[in-house]
Amino acid sequence: MAVYTEIGEDDLEALLELYDAGKLLSFKGIAEGSENSNYLLHTSRAPYILTLYERRVDPVDLPFFLGLMEHLAERGVSCPLPVRRRDGAVVSEIAGRPAALITFLEGMWIRRPTPQHCRKVGEALAGLHLAAEGFALTRANALTLNGWRDLWDKARPRADEVEPGLEAEVEADLEMLVRQWPHDLPRGVIHADLFPDNVFFLGGKVSGIIDFYFACNDLLAYDVATCLNAWCFEKDGSYNLTKGSALLEGYQSVRRLQAEEIAALPLLARGSALRFMLTRLYDWLTIPDGALVTKRDPMEYVRRLRFHRQISSPSEYGTGIQ
Amino acid sequence: MAVYTEIGEDDLEALLELYDAGKLLSFKGIAEGSENSNYLLHTSRAPYILTLYERRVDPVDLPFFLGLMEHLAERGVSCPLPVRRRDGAVVSEIAGRPAALITFLEGMWIRRPTPQHCRKVGEALAGLHLAAEGFALTRANALTLNGWRDLWDKARPRADEVEPGLEAEVEADLEMLVRQWPHDLPRGVIHADLFPDNVFFLGGKVSGIIDFYFACNDLLAYDVATCLNAWCFEKDGSYNLTKGSALLEGYQSVRRLQAEEIAALPLLARGSALRFMLTRLYDWLTIPDGALVTKRDPMEYVRRLRFHRQISSPSEYGTGIQ
Repeated sequence: MAVYTEIGEDDLEALLELYDAGKLLSFKGIAEGSENSNYLLHTSRAPYILTLYERRVDPVDLPFFLGLMEHLAERGVSCPLPVRRRDGAVVSEIAGRPAALITFLEGMWIRRPTPQHCRKVGEALAGLHLAAEGFALTRANALTLNGWRDLWDKARPRADEVEPGLEAEVEADLEMLVRQWPHDLPRGVIHADLFPDNVFFLGGKVSGIIDFYFACNDLLAYDVATCLNAWCFEKDGSYNLTKGSALLEGYQSVRRLQAEEIAALPLLARGSALRFMLTRLYDWLTIPDGALVTKRDPMEYVRRLRFHRQISSPSEYGTGIQ
Repeated sequence: MAVYTEIGEDDLEALLELYDAGKLLSFKGIAEGSENSNYLLHTSRAPYILTLYERRVDPVDLPFFLGLMEHLAERGVSCPLPVRRRDGAVVSEIAGRPAALITFLEGMWIRRPTPQHCRKVGEALAGLHLAAEGFALTRANALTLNGWRDLWDKARPRADEVEPGLEAEVEADLEMLVRQWPHDLPRGVIHADLFPDNVFFLGGKVSGIIDFYFACNDLLAYDVATCLNAWCFEKDGSYNLTKGSALLEGYQSVRRLQAEEIAALPLLARGSALRFMLTRLYDWLTIPDGALVTKRDPMEYVRRLRFHRQISSPSEYGTGIQ
């Protein structure tokens, strides 16, 4: 939650001359987004977001991320549209960082989602999966099985500092997931990080899906599992079946899950919980206290892992209610 | 540079119902302002700033600050206008903080001011001094002689940690300033913190003066001295006479300084440098590393103090050039 790279008005005015986006009126660094620096610009044309890509985004991936946003926006998904420069490019540079100018979407992310919000997110996720079909570029998921193992190798020696016994618990989970992970479910482009702060609502409708910087090709149902983790647990760690059911029903009203996808949900949800637990754990152990990045408690996702481990049927997520 | 208090869309929508300011479309925490939390709101009506007052602002002072902004805006000063609620009030509460909704001003603050910017700031400062005449409320300057002594008493025992010998040097300065401080110069409402990040420019003109949360009644020429400190020194600590001359000329083109005010400039500039040195020193010694607040180096203002101490005539600031 910070602006990592400061920019000056001279550099920004020079940058804007590359675009047909009006004359700069103001810009403010915004305190959102945990990975990149974002500025909200007002120009004589419209509001825009200028994103400066920081350390965790590989510039090689930008054509995929920005091309995907363009592909989706053209197909009616409410996501930011990268603005092309007069020379046709979408990636610029400012203050030594790769940067992109994107359209600004009105709307608010929901701090306390209701089942109705979960239903809308399910619909939007399925809409995104369908709209992404035909997108020409591909990107492997850097945060699936192999990526988990890499992160875990780095965090493992100190895992028990967070909770005694955590090392053995996570190692057993990871071994099981590697053995049993499904590989033959429907694949496509997934968002891979569709948390509440990445979905804007306005008047009860989804007005924007943002932050495509983890998007990749992977199992579509894995994206559904991530949304269950991100939207359907309460602050106390309990799973809200009403929300889960609404999310799944919303999703299936647009794209019906296959029987094999539903059967795999407990495993996928467990893998997804492990993925977010591992990045949090790694940050928890490596980022110094007081850094600009907000560190999030890995234990929140250890508890999700434990929940998914004891699931005996996908119907416990709410699939059976429909 | 941070958002200290998080707000939710429910609370904000409820707050906006107290105003006739349109329907909420979006809000973003902005990474500016070192004292308060600021959100940039878009509504169906216009952009606004919502300021949440944090620890350093005494709610008792809000009628002065907000009333002053209203007084100045009505007299043509480009400053934010506090929006009155339907019930006439200007102060609300959100997330346990006093808060005010104010109009949004387009414009950018200048990272590298030129002499021409300094001239415009001088004009704007004098315009502010004249426009403030007749404002009914008063507020004593909490950061003049007595306030300096209070801060110094707290910081003094550890001053030599910053630079050996600093304690004796500052103590001598403070004693001299208490003895010689002028009390019979023209008084009025001063901004008291008119640094570059509090002045917006658009198309070479001043489009906004913001952040009136140090405003008070004091010597008008003291405000000029603060601007010399804030705008006319280079990053290497040298005084730029061309900028100083331009600032003073701009000021005097709107309000002519009396001979006594000009004669007092070296002393006032020294006092102003001491004031900013002391708040920086206090923060430097008391705020833990890694806190959200950006700590600024007190030595930058120790060097200004040393510069002003060796001034033999006000003409060295550029007053003689006109």
